[in-house]
Amino acid sequence: MIGKLNHVAIAVPDLEAGTVVYRDTLGAKVSEPLPLPEHGVTTVFVALPNTKIELLHPLGEDSPIAKFLEKNPSGGIHHVCYEVEDIEAAAAKMKESGARALGDIKIGAHNKPVLFLHPKDFCGTLVELEQA
Amino acid sequence: MIGKLNHVAIAVPDLEAGTVVYRDTLGAKVSEPLPLPEHGVTTVFVALPNTKIELLHPLGEDSPIAKFLEKNPSGGIHHVCYEVEDIEAAAAKMKESGARALGDIKIGAHNKPVLFLHPKDFCGTLVELEQA
Repeated sequence: MIGKLNHVAIAVPDLEAGTVVYRDTLGAKVSEPLPLPEHGVTTVFVALPNTKIELLHPLGEDSPIAKFLEKNPSGGIHHVCYEVEDIEAAAAKMKESGARALGDIKIGAHNKPVLFLHPKDFCGTLVELEQA
Repeated sequence: MIGKLNHVAIAVPDLEAGTVVYRDTLGAKVSEPLPLPEHGVTTVFVALPNTKIELLHPLGEDSPIAKFLEKNPSGGIHHVCYEVEDIEAAAAKMKESGARALGDIKIGAHNKPVLFLHPKDFCGTLVELEQA
């Protein structure tokens, strides 16, 4: 069912410092910071030849990554995102397998339908499924 | 400098359960477990169209992932691995940038030269560089 790894999301306490690490130290191509107020994050995209890294920094109150950064003050990998062809079918498959979703299907940061899955049912890893 | 994301490594407390999650729940293609005693892990490879997920389980004493699993008993993302063309040049670049490596270049689990980088200097993320 899952297709490509769409991105690895890394929460960072300092977006400029994270950008410097990926652009200057690791020599990757990075985007300008993109504020996504409706998702509570500002994102810098790191373009790799086969996938993306997304640096996430909290934006506004109730950012979905604020608590994660409290627990991980140096930052860390927040989630991985796998592509699926049909998000409704994927959600049904999760239910059938007894694997928990976090909330319902919603529109994600790439303006595509997404579903987040419970880390306890996915090897301790927060998983996002995105309709490709 | 960095090229493709070679893999995302996920430490799992139960390799069979992790395999079931990726094979049956997420519907991905998984390998048989591969014991790598010289690296202190047994690995299951999850093949995605653009990269790999590697499920890691401790093997033998002094496994490099034993402490991580003590701290993260449900498992979690242990490291990301980026490809580089020239590991010696990459190591020199790290030194020049003031970014810390963890030990020296050695032969990694894919029989290629690798260098691990200090999470504190890489957004709280353990990074492996592998010569492609």
